[in-house]
Amino acid sequence: MPLFNKITIIGIGLIGSSLARVIKRDNLAQSLGCFDANPQYMQKALELGIVDEIYSDVTDSVKNADLIVLATPVGAYGEIVKKIAPFLSPQTIITDVGSVKQYTIKEIEANLPTDIDISVVPGHPVAGTEKSGPEAGFATLFDGRWFIITPYERSTESAVNKISELWSHAQMRVDIMTPEHHDKVMAAVSHLPHLIAFSIVGTVADLEGYEQKEIIKYSASGVRDSTRISGSDPTMWRDIFLNNEDTILELIQRFVEDLIALERNIRWNEGDKLFDLFSRTRKIRTEVVEAKQDQPETEKKLLSELKPLD
Amino acid sequence: MPLFNKITIIGIGLIGSSLARVIKRDNLAQSLGCFDANPQYMQKALELGIVDEIYSDVTDSVKNADLIVLATPVGAYGEIVKKIAPFLSPQTIITDVGSVKQYTIKEIEANLPTDIDISVVPGHPVAGTEKSGPEAGFATLFDGRWFIITPYERSTESAVNKISELWSHAQMRVDIMTPEHHDKVMAAVSHLPHLIAFSIVGTVADLEGYEQKEIIKYSASGVRDSTRISGSDPTMWRDIFLNNEDTILELIQRFVEDLIALERNIRWNEGDKLFDLFSRTRKIRTEVVEAKQDQPETEKKLLSELKPLD
Repeated sequence: MPLFNKITIIGIGLIGSSLARVIKRDNLAQSLGCFDANPQYMQKALELGIVDEIYSDVTDSVKNADLIVLATPVGAYGEIVKKIAPFLSPQTIITDVGSVKQYTIKEIEANLPTDIDISVVPGHPVAGTEKSGPEAGFATLFDGRWFIITPYERSTESAVNKISELWSHAQMRVDIMTPEHHDKVMAAVSHLPHLIAFSIVGTVADLEGYEQKEIIKYSASGVRDSTRISGSDPTMWRDIFLNNEDTILELIQRFVEDLIALERNIRWNEGDKLFDLFSRTRKIRTEVVEAKQDQPETEKKLLSELKPLD
Repeated sequence: MPLFNKITIIGIGLIGSSLARVIKRDNLAQSLGCFDANPQYMQKALELGIVDEIYSDVTDSVKNADLIVLATPVGAYGEIVKKIAPFLSPQTIITDVGSVKQYTIKEIEANLPTDIDISVVPGHPVAGTEKSGPEAGFATLFDGRWFIITPYERSTESAVNKISELWSHAQMRVDIMTPEHHDKVMAAVSHLPHLIAFSIVGTVADLEGYEQKEIIKYSASGVRDSTRISGSDPTMWRDIFLNNEDTILELIQRFVEDLIALERNIRWNEGDKLFDLFSRTRKIRTEVVEAKQDQPETEKKLLSELKPLD
């Protein structure tokens, strides 16, 4: 028997469509529906055969669903939950894939009547590429990465277990932590690096006295890596930065302090200090590779297409 | 007949050893020698069969060479040229692969007797990975990338043509520009992004109240890309930053200004401004991909190993 009777994914972008592929591949639901504010995304998902049903109204999409997965940019959660709340079945589980957790829990709670008996399991699959949309997804996106659950009062043990099982099918390892801790760690490993990437690509693109053409032409020498990250979904990232504000603002200050110190090392010709820092960062790189967090998702996809899994 | 009689590569790291592989593959020299300050690197290059001869003394390595390729960190150029100058054959061409060009030309000129009739062709293959050493090299590293030549008085037309031909074998496209322009463009597309990557990895690694383990564990969510760049050779990058100082210091200031503006947008909840920037950077990403400057070298290597070239 499948894990769920009816799953509805709201937001069929990169993450939503990748999860849909896992659900279909492993037959985890009797029926898989989706809603997206973009009708073309829904149509595409249907054509790709990764969902069974699509709906022109989000409220229709959740009827009879025993699992609802919120996979839109986090800024849309409040409005969606407000709309669907009257149409939820008893015992429904709501889960999500948002990159900030204190804000998303707040938005869900603010719009969910307190007297409804449903479980909420806030989740965050720490995986992704810079691509968007249902065509960009692939089932192996999550392989070997971490799925973080940040339970709160409404997260029943049985619901947490079912969501863990769902993501285990996506080959994710499950971690449990508080929403506060999640947001703090992600600010450091994800939000700050993304903000810096957006910022540096903006700086380099705006430099007067440079030909834009040359910047693109020679991008392989470094800025290319930043452009990859800075190609990520603008709405999603706007929502993340605005909704994990305090921690991010603090980290920007820390980063600027460190960069100014480095600038000073260069100005005063302190080669030994530069060498020390660069040796330290190289060591960290080694640790990342050893933790097997290195292989780019696009590369994995490429490889899986060359050698299809049995 | 091979393009050169005897080629000597000084510095058999990532770039030097990749070029050696091209030279051997396409039979571009009667004989290929190398010198490296690290005897283990030389020994490894010999074992790998990518060079014919190794030397314990750099002066021996250049005797009878009609092409000398400087492929060490740029900070070592002065001393090397000083040592080899008395042993150069007439008509020898010296070329290099350094990432800064005004400084390297100055170092070469300061140590080359003015009365010697040799050509110098300053070059920069804009390609690389974060790896180092002769084992990290591979012949397809340069495929489809740009080789920049920055000629000056000592760069004869015939020497420039021969060096262009050499790198065409590595499937590089050749560009010609002034050393000043080169250093300005590279500061923007390469040096600044590398400095920022070193800096951000340092910042994130140093944050107190975070577990180092967690930073590594979740690195796939963003900081991983920065760690890749920040794993690059410390000596090489120290030399680059110290020797393209003025331009880099100016660009750091510009970057900090832009980042502070972004910080202000977050603090004042200016979502539309964030969205505008992120939409712009996404467009730039598209241009990079369209210019085919995207495919990571490691991915190309992986693919070439799966499907060996005919």
